[in-house]
Amino acid sequence: MQANKVPVVDAMQYSRPERVRFEEWRRGGVLCVHHTVAIWENARETIDKIAEWQGFFSENGDLIVQVKSMGDIERARREGKTAVILGFQNTAPLEDNLDLVEVFAALGVKIIQLTYNIQNSVGAGCWEPPEIGLSKHYGPELIREMNRAGILIDLSHCNEQTARDVINLSDGPVAITHANPMSFVGPSAELAPRLKSDYVIKALTERGGVIGLSMYGRMAGPDNSLERFLDMMAWTVELAGIEHVGIGSDFYTGHPPGIVKWWRTGRWGRQSPIPIGSTDPFPDWFRSPADFQLIAQGLRERGFSEEEVGALLATNWLRLYGRAFEGMDVPHQLESQQVVV
Amino acid sequence: MQANKVPVVDAMQYSRPERVRFEEWRRGGVLCVHHTVAIWENARETIDKIAEWQGFFSENGDLIVQVKSMGDIERARREGKTAVILGFQNTAPLEDNLDLVEVFAALGVKIIQLTYNIQNSVGAGCWEPPEIGLSKHYGPELIREMNRAGILIDLSHCNEQTARDVINLSDGPVAITHANPMSFVGPSAELAPRLKSDYVIKALTERGGVIGLSMYGRMAGPDNSLERFLDMMAWTVELAGIEHVGIGSDFYTGHPPGIVKWWRTGRWGRQSPIPIGSTDPFPDWFRSPADFQLIAQGLRERGFSEEEVGALLATNWLRLYGRAFEGMDVPHQLESQQVVV
Repeated sequence: MQANKVPVVDAMQYSRPERVRFEEWRRGGVLCVHHTVAIWENARETIDKIAEWQGFFSENGDLIVQVKSMGDIERARREGKTAVILGFQNTAPLEDNLDLVEVFAALGVKIIQLTYNIQNSVGAGCWEPPEIGLSKHYGPELIREMNRAGILIDLSHCNEQTARDVINLSDGPVAITHANPMSFVGPSAELAPRLKSDYVIKALTERGGVIGLSMYGRMAGPDNSLERFLDMMAWTVELAGIEHVGIGSDFYTGHPPGIVKWWRTGRWGRQSPIPIGSTDPFPDWFRSPADFQLIAQGLRERGFSEEEVGALLATNWLRLYGRAFEGMDVPHQLESQQVVV
Repeated sequence: MQANKVPVVDAMQYSRPERVRFEEWRRGGVLCVHHTVAIWENARETIDKIAEWQGFFSENGDLIVQVKSMGDIERARREGKTAVILGFQNTAPLEDNLDLVEVFAALGVKIIQLTYNIQNSVGAGCWEPPEIGLSKHYGPELIREMNRAGILIDLSHCNEQTARDVINLSDGPVAITHANPMSFVGPSAELAPRLKSDYVIKALTERGGVIGLSMYGRMAGPDNSLERFLDMMAWTVELAGIEHVGIGSDFYTGHPPGIVKWWRTGRWGRQSPIPIGSTDPFPDWFRSPADFQLIAQGLRERGFSEEEVGALLATNWLRLYGRAFEGMDVPHQLESQQVVV
């Protein structure tokens, strides 16, 4: 059976890479995934992770292609494959070295989050006091270099002031690849400091940025139903406009035990500052990226047009990627909103 | 000719290591030097620098010994040699890895400055806004680990709030190995943000810490005469007490051209945020550490007793080192204030 599927661009996943994941992407109509390769890893360790992906691309060329330019996403669309953008959730791999920005850009790292949860030499993450902003010297130097090298700046885990400073300073639009609105979710979420203020969402999207919404349970609040996710999407469209909302699932699976502790504490702490949940953080309606079309169907049932569904699920991210990676002024258009899988 | 010399402990030097330097130390009566091996270097690069020092210790065993415990300083005194403490002026070599603290301690790194001039994951340097303090998560973890591992915390380049936070949080006394008092020098110094407030000097010394004063021209202000240096020493003794003042010359020489730019900008910036001076920053009366005895003589002429001169030139640092490295409650006493060189 063939089915028309809306192409999906998911702005954040971090699974252990293996072929079963790439098959899920195809089943879910996933045209493009931004996939994390580093959080606390240094430059050398990160190069190993990127090298490992070269093997995955080589061995799974029937399912995935690496994104080094926007043309690779277009090629993936034509060939019915998933385009994978490698990215960092922290600037640790850069080792405070401006020249490594271009090195990693050449290796296909197109999206970099400036901080994870704690302070670094660039700025402050969401676990630090909200008033600590971008650092005075390295912060602006790095933003300038990332703008120049065509790397999209991601503010998902940054705190309030760092996000504000970067939105103001960046030459081009920036992203929140995976975070939900604080006003919608409320402070009950386990990871409440990770949620974004209306101020930051509006400032970012008014300058052309996009926010990716997540069904990651610890950020979604107690009701993590599909209906609630669709409510959040509609609410955020009201706040930020139909062109500035997308999906950033934050989906992960397949890792060895202890991975969440590693993400939370790296090598800088002995214990996670917040409890590590013991249950699967993803809801029943979203067992894997194979389930993305449920969101498309839900949006249709709420009266969103096919063009709007396409914007929310894919083209908003593609427009921003085109601007950030290649300075494209013209919004990126998929030749067709529909791909046959 | 033999001459009695007051032993000198200099809490900061960063020359290119070579035998002529070690000979200057002996001429100047230098019993112990804290010598920098890293500012922006990562763990691997720093291990190379420490390994290089193993060669220097091996080839110059008639002049220098490495400090791994207080006993090594006592041995150097008995044998008429200079004891060298290796240290960092930044936490970059730790790569945000708590477990590397113990690794470097085992390699003889006994003093670590938490930040250089800019912000890092631990806190903020003196070029950042003064109100940015110790980071909320990694900062306290690192201080606890350094306290445990017997590494003396150095706040010389940290900004005001980071210094205050660390003085309050550290289990034991901490150091300003090389910085001058802002109230004495005034804001005319080229590196004025590097100067320390009365508040920080008093808070640090009331808890047992020591401040090392420097004749580095860019921190000393326009009048960098020996008399002015002695004035500063007497002024700081008035503020902090005779037991809490020492010398941290910040002396450096022998490096290839461009070294100051490297120190100022590492790999994180393209240009030094402050001008790089073109003149030798050390005064005529202090051409090298061979000239330290001039300070002893000057202090005597101002009426300081031999015991006081010995405290200011050596034993204050030795007492703090004993406490920090080995938890010694009893102040370290040299068997004699006089060594024959």
